[in-house]
Amino acid sequence: MRFSLLSAAMVAGCFMASPLFAQQEEVKLPPQATEFYTPVVKKVTPGKENHLPPADAIVLFDGSNLNAWVSDRPGSSPAPWKVENGTFTVVPRTGGIRSKESFGDVQVHIEWSAPTVIKGTGQGRGNSGFFFMGKYELQILDSYDNETYTNGMAASIYKQHPPLVNAMRAPGEWNTYDAIFKAPRFDSNGMLVSPATITVIHNGVLVQNNVELKGPTLYIGIPHYEAHEAALPFHIQDHGDEVKFRNIWVRKLD
Amino acid sequence: MRFSLLSAAMVAGCFMASPLFAQQEEVKLPPQATEFYTPVVKKVTPGKENHLPPADAIVLFDGSNLNAWVSDRPGSSPAPWKVENGTFTVVPRTGGIRSKESFGDVQVHIEWSAPTVIKGTGQGRGNSGFFFMGKYELQILDSYDNETYTNGMAASIYKQHPPLVNAMRAPGEWNTYDAIFKAPRFDSNGMLVSPATITVIHNGVLVQNNVELKGPTLYIGIPHYEAHEAALPFHIQDHGDEVKFRNIWVRKLD
Amino acid sequence: MRFSLLSAAMVAGCFMASPLFAQQEEVKLPPQATEFYTPVVKKVTPGKENHLPPADAIVLFDGSNLNAWVSDRPGSSPAPWKVENGTFTVVPRTGGIRSKESFGDVQVHIEWSAPTVIKGTGQGRGNSGFFFMGKYELQILDSYDNETYTNGMAASIYKQHPPLVNAMRAPGEWNTYDAIFKAPRFDSNGMLVSPATITVIHNGVLVQNNVELKGPTLYIGIPHYEAHEAALPFHIQDHGDEVKFRNIWVRKLD
Amino acid sequence: MRFSLLSAAMVAGCFMASPLFAQQEEVKLPPQATEFYTPVVKKVTPGKENHLPPADAIVLFDGSNLNAWVSDRPGSSPAPWKVENGTFTVVPRTGGIRSKESFGDVQVHIEWSAPTVIKGTGQGRGNSGFFFMGKYELQILDSYDNETYTNGMAASIYKQHPPLVNAMRAPGEWNTYDAIFKAPRFDSNGMLVSPATITVIHNGVLVQNNVELKGPTLYIGIPHYEAHEAALPFHIQDHGDEVKFRNIWVRKLD
Repeated sequence: MRFSLLSAAMVAGCFMASPLFAQQEEVKLPPQATEFYTPVVKKVTPGKENHLPPADAIVLFDGSNLNAWVSDRPGSSPAPWKVENGTFTVVPRTGGIRSKESFGDVQVHIEWSAPTVIKGTGQGRGNSGFFFMGKYELQILDSYDNETYTNGMAASIYKQHPPLVNAMRAPGEWNTYDAIFKAPRFDSNGMLVSPATITVIHNGVLVQNNVELKGPTLYIGIPHYEAHEAALPFHIQDHGDEVKFRNIWVRKLD
Repeated sequence: MRFSLLSAAMVAGCFMASPLFAQQEEVKLPPQATEFYTPVVKKVTPGKENHLPPADAIVLFDGSNLNAWVSDRPGSSPAPWKVENGTFTVVPRTGGIRSKESFGDVQVHIEWSAPTVIKGTGQGRGNSGFFFMGKYELQILDSYDNETYTNGMAASIYKQHPPLVNAMRAPGEWNTYDAIFKAPRFDSNGMLVSPATITVIHNGVLVQNNVELKGPTLYIGIPHYEAHEAALPFHIQDHGDEVKFRNIWVRKLD
Repeated sequence: MRFSLLSAAMVAGCFMASPLFAQQEEVKLPPQATEFYTPVVKKVTPGKENHLPPADAIVLFDGSNLNAWVSDRPGSSPAPWKVENGTFTVVPRTGGIRSKESFGDVQVHIEWSAPTVIKGTGQGRGNSGFFFMGKYELQILDSYDNETYTNGMAASIYKQHPPLVNAMRAPGEWNTYDAIFKAPRFDSNGMLVSPATITVIHNGVLVQNNVELKGPTLYIGIPHYEAHEAALPFHIQDHGDEVKFRNIWVRKLD
Repeated sequence: MRFSLLSAAMVAGCFMASPLFAQQEEVKLPPQATEFYTPVVKKVTPGKENHLPPADAIVLFDGSNLNAWVSDRPGSSPAPWKVENGTFTVVPRTGGIRSKESFGDVQVHIEWSAPTVIKGTGQGRGNSGFFFMGKYELQILDSYDNETYTNGMAASIYKQHPPLVNAMRAPGEWNTYDAIFKAPRFDSNGMLVSPATITVIHNGVLVQNNVELKGPTLYIGIPHYEAHEAALPFHIQDHGDEVKFRNIWVRKLD
């Protein structure tokens, strides 16, 4: 049972001498001493190319349909966005969409592309967003030669953390986000025990390095944690721009 | 429902201009914008002195009896150690004791005192140990003018982390440990997601600063995580020395 | 030189068999294999009681004078607050004080007491603050039976993190803060690499558990990091209330 | 100067009322309040494809020569490994190579391929290693249908952390590592203040999630920190197998 390993330690400990030398130089250790065979590491066949879903991924968009998503709007549950040529495009003013399945800690791969017809400036150009747990936004924006506030650029954690650098590709080109997200934990009083954290690689470039989120994303106001569920759906934002998406997959990490 | 706050953001966002100035200088914010009233912060009356149990503590030893503990040995369930003068003392070779209640993330206060009759050296002097979850040892040892390996001194995480400094009091004097322990988390494959961490203050001096544990404590061999329960009993070690304890309390943090 | 240990590993590795067993059960390790003697752990005599300064502490107030502090106000450099009976008291409207010495990562012990004549409510009662690096405020306030915003209570990181619980003592009684603060780090572009973090124990009760600060404290506006020095003076706030202090000491952790 | 923002806060604070409502619902905040324009985010043009070096990368191998590397062996400073067809191959028993330049915190991209002629088993098959700071090994091994200890598999932190999953491609195929490494920090006594950490993505699959390293890698013995420089060269291991490499680049993060 649980304490059995301690018994050996205690007995042995009673007769232990007090050698006054550093470990590495004097003790002849067999190399096997630091080799472990459990827990067994599961095999996961990677995608044929790195951006393609590995064998254990849940594919949320493979180019054919939006069956993994529903509309945010009550009474219009199929996601009303346009699917063609292996991509889907936001249909402005139809509302956001959210995943049918709920997720907590995840690795996510997303590809997106800003409209080639450039209209607007700042937040008005190629704007959307990917919300972990429907609450924590990884910003999507055409930040290519487009001034805006740093914590609202593409690859920012919206209104919380600017990206470390701007690694944006031009409108019409495909951007990738590879993100590692950890959900927040709360204690029995509802107080925050550990905040959400995220690492993001944008087009192969590190832009968020295990940063802590300050609370759910807000456009107006100050982010602030209140206790919530351990798993919730993803949300993709309709911000009025025809942003395109393709190849979205997720791996559960909890 | 969940996405309601996003709707406001999306609508507002569509009409947003692109101001090219830094936030602090230009925007007249009301101070109330950064003031929050929820979640409500629970009142916890502290002890009359800082070492005494606060109102929400579970007292594991208040000087009168060992009712919160059982023997590790099968068939001898009352903890067989000696209680007198508001303290309890290890009775060598009767085996360790463990708490009846199980714990995960905790704040713990422990007071202990090494024997005044000094016999032995190194690990042979005033040795015991407090095990979080019965697995993760905060070392107890008479480290006062007593050479031993650094990761086996008092206030070490045994065979894992030496204390930052040696803040030991002399034999017969009372030492305190104030520790903040976070239990490890595992994923559905049994792989480690986040290791146990600990902060320890020894006699008012920081000795472990949020260090990660390498796995359950081992006297012989290399620590290594295997998935286990989220809450487990504390264990106090019988290492053959008449170490004294008093005033042990714990607050749950999860 | 640096790579010498690798040579041994490479040679040995070439002849290594592939044993298919778990480590703990089969390998007979000597216990000395996991015992280390360097780096040497420095001895630090703790205070006679835990709240008293350990031997390596820099004492910033020992009851006799404010020589370790200067006024924030230009042209009035001696700190103008009142020293008597082993305490010092804020003299309202004379301005804050700051330490002559600069600090980065630290352990700090502070004792303070709210006025016994209660006037005002909320933030108007017994208000002051201890600023790490002159920028990051650990709030001081009479939060005893006094409603205010949670992230402005005593032991909050002001306008950033409420305390986990309210462990306040009554006006006229002495409160203690034991805090572990880590300064933020910035990269060569001035981007934040790691934020400031803090752990706080209030009257023996954990109230901040290694939380990340969102940036320098602001009364109005949103906290936000800009690169700054690695060490800066402490600041104690004059907020118009006659808060008393005593026994302030700090240990450098970097 | 430094404390000027506090003055405004203090004055304003003196007249502050005590509103008893939650922030979000009542306060009309302008959205600009949470928008920041500094520090300026540097533009970094990503590679044309994600695996190609971004504009700010230091390219350590672009297919043409090993000029960025030297031999570990004294007296034979050009790296003696074989360059052809845009790759380089370990020449067994010529010793490892190390980068001319030194690095601390980094993002690294590495591509490598195990020999197609399979000989040996376990650690004897397709073995090499990439050492951050010449000390911290990200293991390279043909782990495709090849049993070995879990903490010695490809993508393990050698003898410290097994990968979360085995995402290995077959011999002759190209594997990628995308790693984010943070160097350890030490205090003025030489004690460890923060350990090295690493995140690794293997062929697009997360295999190490911000894990802490236990010290420099050892084949025999227990890892253990001793204070060292803030930047040191990378090392690639000659373990007697003809492992191929291509497309190695690094971005400095400190």
